[in-house]
Amino acid sequence: MKLTYTGKTKNVYALEDGNYLLQFKDDVTGENGVFDPGANTVGLTMEGAGRAGLKLTKFFFEKLQEKGIPTHYIAADIEKATMTVKPAQVFGEGLEVICRFRAVGSFLRRYGKYATDAQPLDAFVEVTLKDDDRQDPPISEDALDMLGILTKEEYQTLKSLTQQIAHVVKDELAVKGIELYDIKFEFGRVGEDKQIVLIDEISGGNMRAYKDGEYIEPLELEKMFL
Amino acid sequence: MKLTYTGKTKNVYALEDGNYLLQFKDDVTGENGVFDPGANTVGLTMEGAGRAGLKLTKFFFEKLQEKGIPTHYIAADIEKATMTVKPAQVFGEGLEVICRFRAVGSFLRRYGKYATDAQPLDAFVEVTLKDDDRQDPPISEDALDMLGILTKEEYQTLKSLTQQIAHVVKDELAVKGIELYDIKFEFGRVGEDKQIVLIDEISGGNMRAYKDGEYIEPLELEKMFL
Repeated sequence: MKLTYTGKTKNVYALEDGNYLLQFKDDVTGENGVFDPGANTVGLTMEGAGRAGLKLTKFFFEKLQEKGIPTHYIAADIEKATMTVKPAQVFGEGLEVICRFRAVGSFLRRYGKYATDAQPLDAFVEVTLKDDDRQDPPISEDALDMLGILTKEEYQTLKSLTQQIAHVVKDELAVKGIELYDIKFEFGRVGEDKQIVLIDEISGGNMRAYKDGEYIEPLELEKMFL
Repeated sequence: MKLTYTGKTKNVYALEDGNYLLQFKDDVTGENGVFDPGANTVGLTMEGAGRAGLKLTKFFFEKLQEKGIPTHYIAADIEKATMTVKPAQVFGEGLEVICRFRAVGSFLRRYGKYATDAQPLDAFVEVTLKDDDRQDPPISEDALDMLGILTKEEYQTLKSLTQQIAHVVKDELAVKGIELYDIKFEFGRVGEDKQIVLIDEISGGNMRAYKDGEYIEPLELEKMFL
């Protein structure tokens, strides 16, 4: 088992059978000790965050599997905080795909002239480049196509999958009286036919969830939800 | 004649017949005394800049008229540095539409991970909101539609007009051995049928033009071109 990538919130190991093992860490993104799913630095370390993130990820990835929505998920070991996944190739050097049900975070910072805080948004999808040096800039369908990162056809698949998956998460949270404001995903191409599938994780660290108008911290979300 | 708007590079007066008069000023956008068409502050004042901008604008707007591409242009008075235009309603509180033939400026600052300096781009179109407080953020077709600024149909018209007009400017400059790298336009709705037309100006202050790989300042461009 060989360490192939050290990420902000997880490490990636290559397995001998060609699959990969994701080791979930207790680090979460944010700034100055405050959690922010939109940040691209590690803001703080919370004991149990890795395992909590994996528990939610396992729940949602298995839920998506039941619904026939493709992911890279194979199995999870909660005790070890590891997840076994199929090999996937990311788009370019990595994209984040955000689905928004309410206007908060960077959306509001950019479009505050036309949107009010927490205004409902209709499963709005946008893509940002994973690029720490350039603060993860948003990028349009046309630019993704022109720069050879994603074809227009792939963009439509990505957008459709994003909305489907976001609605699955939103509906599951709603059962517990929790409201999903926004969520971010990563996708990759899997197999010889380069099928577009969800990769990485679905956890409190990737979403903003609220209960009765109050924001729920990632660790709290896992406790409330599972 | 009533002053209705004081802009960074021009003032707008309402005429009694319902049309408007644009007074071109000698101020150009930039920062710290350096011209930058992408900036949203007045960077410097150059004597003759208003008249030079109007001369180019008159030339291009009349060229577009010949080609049947709609603009708000009625007439220009070079001596007085004024242009008479039809009343137009901007989209939201104003958009800028950029067409790029080479990767420079904010495109390169955002997408430098995937593009190299001055790399050719295929008449790439992007829209930014006019919002000084938020540094004119780029905005996608989906977001423009969702926020009620522009319908998807209007977006396609805007994109198509932008590429047509940018090619007219590019071709005219090429006759003088000048290469257009990028250009920004403003559009508005005119008349009862809300036809989308080009408004504002086409001058050195709205584009980056190069000769033999060297950038041409706005005033210099007018001298070289006309």
